[in-house]
Amino acid sequence: MSGGPVDAATPPEVATAPRGRFDLIFEPAGQRVRVPPHVFLFDAASWNGVAIDSTCGGHGTCRKCKVRVIEGTAPVTALDTRAFTVEELKRGWRLACRVDVTSDLRVDVPPLATRPKAATVGVGRRVILRPAVQKRFVELTPPSLADQTTDLDRLTACLDDLEVRAELDVLRTLGPVLRRSDYRVTAVVVDDVLVAVEAGDTTQTTYAIAFDLGTTTVVATLLDLATGAPLAVRSMLNKQQPFGADVITRISAIMMDARTLSELTRLAHETLNELAQGVCEDAGVNPNNVYEIALAGNATMTHIALGLDPESLGVAPFIMTAALFPDVLASDLGVAVHQRARAVLFPALGAYVGGDIVSGLLASGMDRDSRLRLFLDIGTNCEVVLGNSDRLLATAAPAGPAFEGAAIRCGVRAAPGAIETVKITSDDVQLGVIGDEDPTGLCGSGLVDVVAELVQLKLIDPSGRFVTDEVAASLAPGVASRLTQWNDLRVFVLHWNGDVGDVTRSIFLSQRDVRELQFAKASIATGWRILLEEAGVAVNDIQQVLLGGSFGSYLSAASAVRLGLVPNLPLLRIVSAGNVAGEGAKMALLSLRERRGAMALLEEVEYVELSDRGDFNDRFVDELAFPA
Amino acid sequence: MSGGPVDAATPPEVATAPRGRFDLIFEPAGQRVRVPPHVFLFDAASWNGVAIDSTCGGHGTCRKCKVRVIEGTAPVTALDTRAFTVEELKRGWRLACRVDVTSDLRVDVPPLATRPKAATVGVGRRVILRPAVQKRFVELTPPSLADQTTDLDRLTACLDDLEVRAELDVLRTLGPVLRRSDYRVTAVVVDDVLVAVEAGDTTQTTYAIAFDLGTTTVVATLLDLATGAPLAVRSMLNKQQPFGADVITRISAIMMDARTLSELTRLAHETLNELAQGVCEDAGVNPNNVYEIALAGNATMTHIALGLDPESLGVAPFIMTAALFPDVLASDLGVAVHQRARAVLFPALGAYVGGDIVSGLLASGMDRDSRLRLFLDIGTNCEVVLGNSDRLLATAAPAGPAFEGAAIRCGVRAAPGAIETVKITSDDVQLGVIGDEDPTGLCGSGLVDVVAELVQLKLIDPSGRFVTDEVAASLAPGVASRLTQWNDLRVFVLHWNGDVGDVTRSIFLSQRDVRELQFAKASIATGWRILLEEAGVAVNDIQQVLLGGSFGSYLSAASAVRLGLVPNLPLLRIVSAGNVAGEGAKMALLSLRERRGAMALLEEVEYVELSDRGDFNDRFVDELAFPA
Repeated sequence: MSGGPVDAATPPEVATAPRGRFDLIFEPAGQRVRVPPHVFLFDAASWNGVAIDSTCGGHGTCRKCKVRVIEGTAPVTALDTRAFTVEELKRGWRLACRVDVTSDLRVDVPPLATRPKAATVGVGRRVILRPAVQKRFVELTPPSLADQTTDLDRLTACLDDLEVRAELDVLRTLGPVLRRSDYRVTAVVVDDVLVAVEAGDTTQTTYAIAFDLGTTTVVATLLDLATGAPLAVRSMLNKQQPFGADVITRISAIMMDARTLSELTRLAHETLNELAQGVCEDAGVNPNNVYEIALAGNATMTHIALGLDPESLGVAPFIMTAALFPDVLASDLGVAVHQRARAVLFPALGAYVGGDIVSGLLASGMDRDSRLRLFLDIGTNCEVVLGNSDRLLATAAPAGPAFEGAAIRCGVRAAPGAIETVKITSDDVQLGVIGDEDPTGLCGSGLVDVVAELVQLKLIDPSGRFVTDEVAASLAPGVASRLTQWNDLRVFVLHWNGDVGDVTRSIFLSQRDVRELQFAKASIATGWRILLEEAGVAVNDIQQVLLGGSFGSYLSAASAVRLGLVPNLPLLRIVSAGNVAGEGAKMALLSLRERRGAMALLEEVEYVELSDRGDFNDRFVDELAFPA
Repeated sequence: MSGGPVDAATPPEVATAPRGRFDLIFEPAGQRVRVPPHVFLFDAASWNGVAIDSTCGGHGTCRKCKVRVIEGTAPVTALDTRAFTVEELKRGWRLACRVDVTSDLRVDVPPLATRPKAATVGVGRRVILRPAVQKRFVELTPPSLADQTTDLDRLTACLDDLEVRAELDVLRTLGPVLRRSDYRVTAVVVDDVLVAVEAGDTTQTTYAIAFDLGTTTVVATLLDLATGAPLAVRSMLNKQQPFGADVITRISAIMMDARTLSELTRLAHETLNELAQGVCEDAGVNPNNVYEIALAGNATMTHIALGLDPESLGVAPFIMTAALFPDVLASDLGVAVHQRARAVLFPALGAYVGGDIVSGLLASGMDRDSRLRLFLDIGTNCEVVLGNSDRLLATAAPAGPAFEGAAIRCGVRAAPGAIETVKITSDDVQLGVIGDEDPTGLCGSGLVDVVAELVQLKLIDPSGRFVTDEVAASLAPGVASRLTQWNDLRVFVLHWNGDVGDVTRSIFLSQRDVRELQFAKASIATGWRILLEEAGVAVNDIQQVLLGGSFGSYLSAASAVRLGLVPNLPLLRIVSAGNVAGEGAKMALLSLRERRGAMALLEEVEYVELSDRGDFNDRFVDELAFPA
């Protein structure tokens, strides 16, 4: 992996990385991209914003993605022999979706015959609209003795750019629908499955729902697939909450009582379905016109939602049942939309780097960007991904529940009343409270702020210990009185709820809370430091730090740097990425090619397991201290 | 189509038939076969008994089917580049399962590394055992922190010659089964689907059931897939019988009352399931170890069994919902074997040339035999197929219910008491009765015999009319008294049940019965004559007539020739083919390649519709007369 900015036109030293890469140059623009072996040329172009004609989305059926290979090797496939003359083949013409890249290539891309629609989603990602869900209105010639083509073949012959298989349930309605509607019907195809045949022209009502299935919060976005526009968004707490705040407590509940699995599965389904019905209601959309859903969730949430036993995720060696789930229906997830609607689930890279992270990588485009970037999704578990289009490394660091407000004496979840920002000078404490209400406790971003401010003021020393009252009085006379004793603990009071001096009723930070934060921070920092080392790069080589998840949106970059939670970099390089998991799920619904890109990440990202590293504990201890 | 015997080594004139063919020569044996374009070399070899190594059955996953192309064009595929060195590719080495035949080829086939098992089924067809159902016992290395492969990938990595996708239901049991059985499990794969994972080694219990779903009779055969042996056979009347004897009356019942469809579907399922449970019981096999079923039935029976509305099959222009049904489970057909067992359904060539005929063609090997053959399956509907490995033509002729005993005054079904053979001389009548019981009526083969005998004796003239008493007395004095009058009908009495002269209680053939037979015979003969004409061949070019179905087994070839029901050929060329539909279903279960051959028939057979031919009626009338 290159240290400095990577210039795509000059292959950096990483060409010697363990996984080979090939250079593709797209003419006439001359755009150069690097790709792993055995990607299809069409997908590589699409991922890099090079538009090639296609109506089938790269399935090898429309034969429109014609390009001319000017340099490099691209064997003629059986399909090429049907699409081109011998003369054209000799001149290098190939179908881009069949070119399996096994060498550097220079290809000429003809101008587009039609202008594709596009939408902007993810981290400024422009996505060419080509959903897996395709609706086609067709007017069929009724059969006659001279044309006894079957109902199915009559229909599919009019979908000549799509290759579909029909499920039995659809066949059961096909004949009656065709005859009732005078052979004027709309075929609904998802990927390669004919899921419905509807009377008349229904092409304008095509919807999908993207779910971000979080352990705490679940978000649903209803998308109009005809335009790419989001029509409604709803979120709610995951109904599994009563079984524990984090994945480990929920897995434990299942280990204690096997019947709990089906109960948790049911609750996940209820949550997803309530949201689905809600967004449809908000937008006035008939749920029967929702033909696909996408779900990004961590491995445990995904396993439970599918009814898969997550027990082996909860104990070493942390084994998933599967990383990829090919044929899942929305109904398998309890979502009552169209009865044959399909569900796309993001694959997981590991038991603790799940589909939500893969979805986030898709949204952030890390695998197609030459800049070296570090992605951090901080929660009970912290997922860490480092790399660029040449190489991606991922790991998971167990952060504990400190940032969720748990295990912190005055900790609360980020909700109205939670202190989310803290400024402390030697004279004063300023609190930012969600909803401008009376403060009720300290949420994750407030916790990071207060510790960072106290470290800055030297009221907490680099080892994480509160200084003595004497030292505090000399360093920060205006706030020194807040540093006091409560039972057997040193505490720093942020807000007196009752009388000044009544610590019990106040909101404070205790010595033990600082230790909890140190454990979390040390775990996360060990994670990204090990990845930097594996990649052979230094902190300063990182061109951007992306903070994912809702916590990432509220965290103060300055405080995070001060504590060593994120690498010490200019603050401009540290950005919040927003709800990237949800954005990735939307992208997967809007673009079949983006979806394939997400699936390809499973092969492309190298997973680094921390828990079997002999040096992990030593390095963890090294990271406990705050930067001096 | 060639007139005389076709010598495979000398392409006959049919090379100019509308569908092109290519010659393949397999060295070192020098075997030459002709195939349509775009078949895979591996399949072509397999269908013609040329064994090529393979464990995946042609899925492109085991990379064992290595052959060397000596002459002709076979483009290098992406898979070839992984299986061979550049040097080997230059020398012509290819994976036979990826070679899409688009030119004449001469290939060298290496000797087999393993000796395949084979079974003889069908019309003397030797089938290399390679069922779609594959069981593999594997002992997996348990996971560790250094090897966190998912449960599914850990399993599939040990099935390296099979490429499988797992359904959600299997995944739900996967983890618990692996851990309960110390990672020693048997994977059950059907085609490319992982249908089950069983604890321990269960490879010796692998079964399948072949069904011949007739309108009248349904037959089930339980097969041991490990040996190819049939373990038990049962048959019973189709429980749909109360709704009508033939397909048209059952379709009519559905047209009269839409609720009848689900009732008939339920009855089909009950019939199939009772037989399935019966054969399992007979052989002491657990139904949960039946992982696949195959079903050969006519288009109407298949539609109803699948819950597809057959209405459009019953009225012109006779349209099927679909000809091919890809993803059907045994449970979709009401058969309670393994819950994820798959079902193979034979495709239909037309509304009246159904899956039973395709199955029969598979069993008879008509598409791979150079001899010109005529296949006739005579029932209420008569299916006619003419051709050889160069070209196949099919049609359906509506024969009416005469051969089933219906519409014939003294007609009965072929059951104990039915007169099945008749010999008449000028002095005497000899009857062969099923079960040697007192005769109760005349079944189809008896009907053909009696009319043929009376035509031979000239008691029926070529136009089908009984001669006068005077003529009868002069031609056959010993039996002339049996020719008499009953009500307004001329009749010939076969058996006096009461007193001689008591026609009402006797078993007789009436003038109207002769007319019914003439109609059936004319329809069938018109069918095969039109096919002969379409193919440009003469009656004498036919090297074999295959009589399919149970009626074909009992029909006297001599009588059939005498009436003109079958072409006038030496009797040795007219053979009964037995229950070819059931045999084909067995073949499809025993061999994935044979199954693919059956599916390919859908493309290879040209269907000729009789009812829209302007000359049909004239030709039908011409055929009413008996040969002089």
